[in-house]
Amino acid sequence: MDEDVIQANEAFYRAFESLDIEQMSAIWDADISIRCVHPGWSALTDWSTVMSSWERIFENAGMMQFTITDSAVTVCGEWAWVACKENLSSLQGGRVVSGAVETLNIFRRRGQAWKLVIHHGSPIA
Amino acid sequence: MDEDVIQANEAFYRAFESLDIEQMSAIWDADISIRCVHPGWSALTDWSTVMSSWERIFENAGMMQFTITDSAVTVCGEWAWVACKENLSSLQGGRVVSGAVETLNIFRRRGQAWKLVIHHGSPIA
Repeated sequence: MDEDVIQANEAFYRAFESLDIEQMSAIWDADISIRCVHPGWSALTDWSTVMSSWERIFENAGMMQFTITDSAVTVCGEWAWVACKENLSSLQGGRVVSGAVETLNIFRRRGQAWKLVIHHGSPIA
Repeated sequence: MDEDVIQANEAFYRAFESLDIEQMSAIWDADISIRCVHPGWSALTDWSTVMSSWERIFENAGMMQFTITDSAVTVCGEWAWVACKENLSSLQGGRVVSGAVETLNIFRRRGQAWKLVIHHGSPIA
């Protein structure tokens, strides 16, 4: 069970790296109120606003690569969450820039899939 | 049930305002691995480190006042979480400074009490 959640969490970061809005939207739970906090942003709390934010991020992003560390998984019936650190390398103006984000991702089980309901990322100063 | 969780969440902020480590430590779940992300910090993941961080924050804080808005509560059996916005006024160098923090607090039910397991606050730029 924990392994399925870890895989769902990894799938979120592969969708992020894809910079493809269809791949990203497939990660999220379309049947419940979702919540997304990008590092430094106010919370976005409806589907269209969240997806628009990803489109905007993808339009402005070059290569992005995430290595996820320090993952801690908790499963509670139909719900599960992963606390982890995102170690990010991205290409900005021809240079590779590294950074880290503390994250809490909450998923809901839908059939065989775990769908993302809350993504909360915070910058590490 | 939701109301009890909201009250537990409010109690956390009253403990924060008290600047009293005993009041703050009573909020947290002493029987499970806890996690605390202060805005801009890396995650702290054990009891003594988390409590030391609160002592340090309290030593350096003047008056702090939190108004909690946009709370969304989810309950899953023994677990519950509150996504909310902390609207903070604090006294810094004789001036009142305002700010806001996006937060996700996860609680675990212990008898009649809801105890804090994860606090994750992120600065709004």
